[in-house]
Amino acid sequence: MTRKDWRIGIAGLGTVGGGLVKFLDERPGFAPAGGNAIVTGICARSRRPALSAIPWFDDPVELALSDTNDIFIELIGGADGPAKAAVEAALSVGKPVVTANKALIAHHGASLAAVAEAQGVPLLFEAAVMGGTPAVKILREAMVGDDIEIVAGILNGTCNYILSEMESTGAAFEDVLSEAQRLGYAEADPTMDIGGFDAAHKITILAALAFGCAPSFASAEVEGLQAIETLDIRLAKDLGYRIKLIASAARSEAGVSIRVHPALTPLDHPLARVGGVLNALFIEGRRVGRIFVQGAGAGAGPTAAAVAADIADVMTGAVRPVFQAPAPALRFVAPVDGAQAVGRAYVRLLVRDEPGVIASITETLAEAGVSIDSFLQKPIAGVGGVPIVLTTHLASESVLTDAVNRIAALPSMLEAPRLIRIARI
Amino acid sequence: MTRKDWRIGIAGLGTVGGGLVKFLDERPGFAPAGGNAIVTGICARSRRPALSAIPWFDDPVELALSDTNDIFIELIGGADGPAKAAVEAALSVGKPVVTANKALIAHHGASLAAVAEAQGVPLLFEAAVMGGTPAVKILREAMVGDDIEIVAGILNGTCNYILSEMESTGAAFEDVLSEAQRLGYAEADPTMDIGGFDAAHKITILAALAFGCAPSFASAEVEGLQAIETLDIRLAKDLGYRIKLIASAARSEAGVSIRVHPALTPLDHPLARVGGVLNALFIEGRRVGRIFVQGAGAGAGPTAAAVAADIADVMTGAVRPVFQAPAPALRFVAPVDGAQAVGRAYVRLLVRDEPGVIASITETLAEAGVSIDSFLQKPIAGVGGVPIVLTTHLASESVLTDAVNRIAALPSMLEAPRLIRIARI
Repeated sequence: MTRKDWRIGIAGLGTVGGGLVKFLDERPGFAPAGGNAIVTGICARSRRPALSAIPWFDDPVELALSDTNDIFIELIGGADGPAKAAVEAALSVGKPVVTANKALIAHHGASLAAVAEAQGVPLLFEAAVMGGTPAVKILREAMVGDDIEIVAGILNGTCNYILSEMESTGAAFEDVLSEAQRLGYAEADPTMDIGGFDAAHKITILAALAFGCAPSFASAEVEGLQAIETLDIRLAKDLGYRIKLIASAARSEAGVSIRVHPALTPLDHPLARVGGVLNALFIEGRRVGRIFVQGAGAGAGPTAAAVAADIADVMTGAVRPVFQAPAPALRFVAPVDGAQAVGRAYVRLLVRDEPGVIASITETLAEAGVSIDSFLQKPIAGVGGVPIVLTTHLASESVLTDAVNRIAALPSMLEAPRLIRIARI
Repeated sequence: MTRKDWRIGIAGLGTVGGGLVKFLDERPGFAPAGGNAIVTGICARSRRPALSAIPWFDDPVELALSDTNDIFIELIGGADGPAKAAVEAALSVGKPVVTANKALIAHHGASLAAVAEAQGVPLLFEAAVMGGTPAVKILREAMVGDDIEIVAGILNGTCNYILSEMESTGAAFEDVLSEAQRLGYAEADPTMDIGGFDAAHKITILAALAFGCAPSFASAEVEGLQAIETLDIRLAKDLGYRIKLIASAARSEAGVSIRVHPALTPLDHPLARVGGVLNALFIEGRRVGRIFVQGAGAGAGPTAAAVAADIADVMTGAVRPVFQAPAPALRFVAPVDGAQAVGRAYVRLLVRDEPGVIASITETLAEAGVSIDSFLQKPIAGVGGVPIVLTTHLASESVLTDAVNRIAALPSMLEAPRLIRIARI
């Protein structure tokens, strides 16, 4: 057993940093293999009187380089700027790094992994994905004996909360978002969450772990929640689905596709049952089959526990590749052309109540090469016109888009058709 | 990165051993940090011509001690005998051990951990619990920054398959068991599975990982599936529950209680939705909250993948305590007196159809100090007498047992009352 004192330097005292300081205070001498974990340096925007006994650093790079700490914890956030400079500095002097920074790893994971592995030190980031619920460790370590084919999850608690509330209250997206902001579940600028970018950072990291490719945020196709209406949520349920923001990464002969978009998820699938701010991940491997993990995706307690678990991993002396393969062997994956992706779709139309409308729609779909799986015409009070929803059989996205564009041009359309993908899980 | 060849010695070529040899054949040079994994010794009951190029050992202890391998893989099985002797031998000469042997770890985990830790080598057993679905690693590593309060799971696929089949087909326990044996889902002697002992081995191991106590199989209270009737499954569903064989370990001021028994599980709880041969685990921690993991619990592919992940862990050079705490600090936990455990129960009675019966039952319960939560009297065709089911509010097991014994003595009873606990999850 390693029995020594581990000196911890913490940069950033936001939600996670505050939670970590609280954790190390509640668990004095946290070091599962013996020894002690002691905070010997802090860098944060404003000093905290309660922590005045701990040496304070104004510059995170200075803290990262200081030989007064053995492990550098980066909780500043942001893909570039001081977070990146400090992590690079720590790794360059052979210091283990633990971070909760998903943007940093999604954008610069490959180059940081190269530095960490050249120095033979760990770079760990369990807290970057699904907070305290293990996801990174499962893919990096537990699944290393499998060939993974798909990972798909609900990775953003804010979006899942909004969708759950829209379903249970019937309130509109904007109203639920305002309420979520009031409750602190959504940021004042919610773009990162509801635009799908936060989930895209996370699935980019998971894809690298699952498939041995370099994290490539630029390859992710991202569509947010903004266009989802409560009417879609109700109609999807009538068809046996719940709308979720699904982040997925799949391997095929064409390469690796990374996508975040709202998707109709079958009601009997475990991901459809994930409610509120919970996160969940579904992994399908060739040997292990289907694994499903669900838990808290954020919050000071869970995320600090994940950082603590990474600190414990550093203490064990384990050295393994940061992603599924050593950095020089990480493949840079060209994005798969989304237009060629094959899937099923839900299409909602609002049409004038006049003879021949349905015939014109079904003929247009047939001409475009799209075949219909289910068709529902449902009068809804207060809606001028007749709402129609249909689901399609498998078709490529380019064919689906072409079909929807043709339908949009029909004279009986009262508004632009809405297309939502059906999840392939 | 460690870059060397790792020489693997495998004792046992049953389902898991055969799966591992196949895996190492499909993934030549499996060694995630570089190098190669090469099988340099095999010990099994009968030689396999296809593996004749690999040196063969007649005695697993000899293989364990041989300096022709760097990692010893024990897949013989059994709590004692050759498996134990070989694992002890390998650890005593400072050789890392990977095993899938749940009985060995549940019975002798503490003494084996002491040897492994004294030698500074890992003793890993991910495949012992839930096959390829991570459970050991999650508790040992990912949750090390949490204070866990309860772990509860469906850890035996055979029992879960039988219960699922009884529910979907309405067939009796004995018939479903025979069919499961025919399909290979149940052993010729099914006692280990349906008696709850297999699940008890597994929850004993998980309790040690979760709570830092020495594995103590003798402390587990075990009740199997044998007494469950399809009528109970139907009536439980009417009351909003599904009957599952739940293995649980909980920490309280009195100590750690480890139990396996059939339990009514609320239909909306994730564990109630685990169907067929799947396994699932629910972990509740003070910081992280509730985590749920579900996946394959057995099978050559998943279990071999778990062994391979452990081999990869050995290659990283990580050294950490085998359980939650170093072996000398493992607490030997006295079993909690089950009679003092507080819970709710389902009670099924068959009574003569005569006046005053219900009054006598409810009075008896009141005298015993048990209060009724729900009461259902349901005529069922072909059953002589009137079936009554009731659920209780919280009461200690000793009080519940006393109440049921008093009811059993009432003159209007046509058969012995059946009591099934309601899951506390």
